Amino acid sequence: MIHNLAKRAHDRNWSLDPIVRSLLDTDWYKLAMLQFIWKHFAGTRVRFTLINRTKAVRLAEVVDEVELRRQLDHARGLRFTKSELIWLAGNTFYGQRNIFSPAFIEWLATLALPPYRLVREDGQLRLDFEGAWEEVTLWEIHALAIVSELRTRHGYAQLDEMDLDILFSRAKAKLWSKVERLAGVPGLSFADFGTRRRHSFLWHEYVVSLLAAKLPGAFSGTSNTYLAYKHNLEAIGTNAHELPMVLTALARLGRLGEVGVQEAQYEVLRLWQQMYGGAMQVMLPDTYGSTQFFQNAPDWLADWNGVRLDSKDPYVGGKEALAFFAARGRDPGKKLLVPSDGLDVDRILGLHATFGGSIQPGHTAADFADARDFQDSAKWRHEPRCRISSGIGTNLTNDFSGCSPGNAADFAPISLVCKVTEVEEHPAVKLSDNYTKATGTAEEIAYYRSVFGSAGLAELPVTT
Amino acid sequence: MIHNLAKRAHDRNWSLDPIVRSLLDTDWYKLAMLQFIWKHFAGTRVRFTLINRTKAVRLAEVVDEVELRRQLDHARGLRFTKSELIWLAGNTFYGQRNIFSPAFIEWLATLALPPYRLVREDGQLRLDFEGAWEEVTLWEIHALAIVSELRTRHGYAQLDEMDLDILFSRAKAKLWSKVERLAGVPGLSFADFGTRRRHSFLWHEYVVSLLAAKLPGAFSGTSNTYLAYKHNLEAIGTNAHELPMVLTALARLGRLGEVGVQEAQYEVLRLWQQMYGGAMQVMLPDTYGSTQFFQNAPDWLADWNGVRLDSKDPYVGGKEALAFFAARGRDPGKKLLVPSDGLDVDRILGLHATFGGSIQPGHTAADFADARDFQDSAKWRHEPRCRISSGIGTNLTNDFSGCSPGNAADFAPISLVCKVTEVEEHPAVKLSDNYTKATGTAEEIAYYRSVFGSAGLAELPVTT
Repeated sequence: MIHNLAKRAHDRNWSLDPIVRSLLDTDWYKLAMLQFIWKHFAGTRVRFTLINRTKAVRLAEVVDEVELRRQLDHARGLRFTKSELIWLAGNTFYGQRNIFSPAFIEWLATLALPPYRLVREDGQLRLDFEGAWEEVTLWEIHALAIVSELRTRHGYAQLDEMDLDILFSRAKAKLWSKVERLAGVPGLSFADFGTRRRHSFLWHEYVVSLLAAKLPGAFSGTSNTYLAYKHNLEAIGTNAHELPMVLTALARLGRLGEVGVQEAQYEVLRLWQQMYGGAMQVMLPDTYGSTQFFQNAPDWLADWNGVRLDSKDPYVGGKEALAFFAARGRDPGKKLLVPSDGLDVDRILGLHATFGGSIQPGHTAADFADARDFQDSAKWRHEPRCRISSGIGTNLTNDFSGCSPGNAADFAPISLVCKVTEVEEHPAVKLSDNYTKATGTAEEIAYYRSVFGSAGLAELPVTT
Repeated sequence: MIHNLAKRAHDRNWSLDPIVRSLLDTDWYKLAMLQFIWKHFAGTRVRFTLINRTKAVRLAEVVDEVELRRQLDHARGLRFTKSELIWLAGNTFYGQRNIFSPAFIEWLATLALPPYRLVREDGQLRLDFEGAWEEVTLWEIHALAIVSELRTRHGYAQLDEMDLDILFSRAKAKLWSKVERLAGVPGLSFADFGTRRRHSFLWHEYVVSLLAAKLPGAFSGTSNTYLAYKHNLEAIGTNAHELPMVLTALARLGRLGEVGVQEAQYEVLRLWQQMYGGAMQVMLPDTYGSTQFFQNAPDWLADWNGVRLDSKDPYVGGKEALAFFAARGRDPGKKLLVPSDGLDVDRILGLHATFGGSIQPGHTAADFADARDFQDSAKWRHEPRCRISSGIGTNLTNDFSGCSPGNAADFAPISLVCKVTEVEEHPAVKLSDNYTKATGTAEEIAYYRSVFGSAGLAELPVTT
């Protein structure tokens, strides 16, 4: 037995095992949005803030601050490589060539992540990223992935080599049981949306590679641009809340010309369709409540390809979206739904059965614990269905619960978020379809509610 | 990334991936018996025969005959190495030094496996090993391990790299669930007896290493001498049916002096205790039926350390063994039971609860599906208990059922046996405690039954 002496010596030499290996290691929609921001809103001053909503996990006791700084600093040192830029320029996204303009690609080559501010508060870590929107925005995913993986590494340090082997064996067995349930369901389509709260880069890469190889029909691709680039997969994504949040805040400050506060959510999409056509026209209606969004939407929006469902019960939200298209005289059967909020295998199958197909041999209604509407509403079963493709995140890329031998280490995912919190030094606000998920200052939230109303929102506070 | 080019090139150069790496890769009791045979019965002509009792698996279609011959020929080329012999001579077994005499060790250094005869019959493979008992006997375990692992490799060939990774992940997850159930049970003791029908050498090594590291109290050691040597573990074993089978056949041929057919089963043990004392005095009573064995046993046998239970229901057989000691005025509480017949975790825990200890916190009677007597016999619960240490085999080292992705490959263990079938060209016979497990020609079995009777045997044929 001849050991690889150079490798062994090198492994002991490592001063840093980097978490972010490439600036491409981000959600693809961040790059699509980046071009949008770069073109229309360069120089807008914003602040993104990363916080842990799972207060029971005292992050500052789990994540070493020095190591966190080293990882963040390493990410600041990254640049898009020549090969990556050539791929971005030459690749086809959603069937379209030349999505990224030569000028944007040229600018991307110069991009570096700006400084961060890290503070400890009550056992938690808080990261702030301030600066020009087009420089700051990429931090979101990289910072989330770094903090998430450092927490994972803290867990690893509790385990010996055999425990680690069992940990991954169990996680792989668990993943495979999901693959088995997702296999052989006609017409099923889903994508990986799990970069931000993944267990680790290498696990993410393993999961995506396995799905691509073993579910080639159903697995439509990954939101992770680097994995799409490295493994020849489709890059998947739509657009995020940060666009309407920033544009609405700008409107509120009177800096969006004629566009009013309530109109800014549509102005985003008007500009988006100038830049991107066809399949990239998938709207995200829930920033200030989906019901008001659809009620007041301009008619041209009904020509869009589909709707992403991110905070309302997707069985309710999906019907609401299809009703919108029908009310505007468009065929809902040709539209696409993209559920993306906390999905797991049950929910993917239930939503597919409800919106995308019938229950298939080998599956029974009992498989679909969440498919309330499917079971309750006889009427719905006779209405036309549509296209549906789910985006599954944390439950795919960070599902290690019950895998740690003796529960010696805690790998349960935490609710880590990184959101735009300020625009030009004023608070940014999201209301969402769920009253409890609103972000922003209390005063600003009150103002936004007075503008957008609360039609169709869940978890409304009780008024006596 | 620098590849280990030499390793990669070497791996492609392999002409044989050997299954048996060492003559020590055998059950330790084979070596204890080998010294016994070498000292007392050298030159006795015997035949061992390997057959597959699971006729549904057509072994000749699964195991490539050319590859089988190459593996068997490779084993024939093996010799005990100098380090292995020094270890055998210098190590302590069951607390005793110098178990193996210098003359035996000197002879061992010259030992090589003799020729084999391989034939195909009805889609099956049959292997015969004929010659002097002391040269032939080791073939049993090596041949079983070779055929078993070749079947495993045939399964591997149906799977791609990812499938193989999932296969092992599931098998490890399954193994770990056994470790979790066996952990924390006070006084529990068990050993690995799984060499002969193991999945593969490397899997066997993994299982034993994991148990040794994670259940250091309960896991008492391995029957596999090579793994004991390599990993610094206790080598575990008693003695096997081949000793009484050959000695009884010799008595039947009038070649055992004054010793009659019925007495040969005790003559084995008389010679055994001349050679090995103390903890190695564990009798195997079931070759011709345990009930007649205990009824007719000479009184000195009641001084032995314990009893291995290998074919009778161990709850019944264990009580019968303890009753033997009690009837002869010895304290059953000081005796050892070694159940070794088709054990799994449930049975190990149930037997331990019944004979070795009380039901422990965290376990309930419902865990012990097999512990019929424990639940039924209120009387038994108040009788004194004894010492118990189980030997678990195939269910530990070859439990891959349900692990193959998509069930693409069949890794279910088969009933592969290699038994002594002839002694001096006359049939050898085993009756066992289970009527259906008898081996030998019909005529000889009938004769043996007339000698030994059928008291206490299970599965007696119905007589009308």
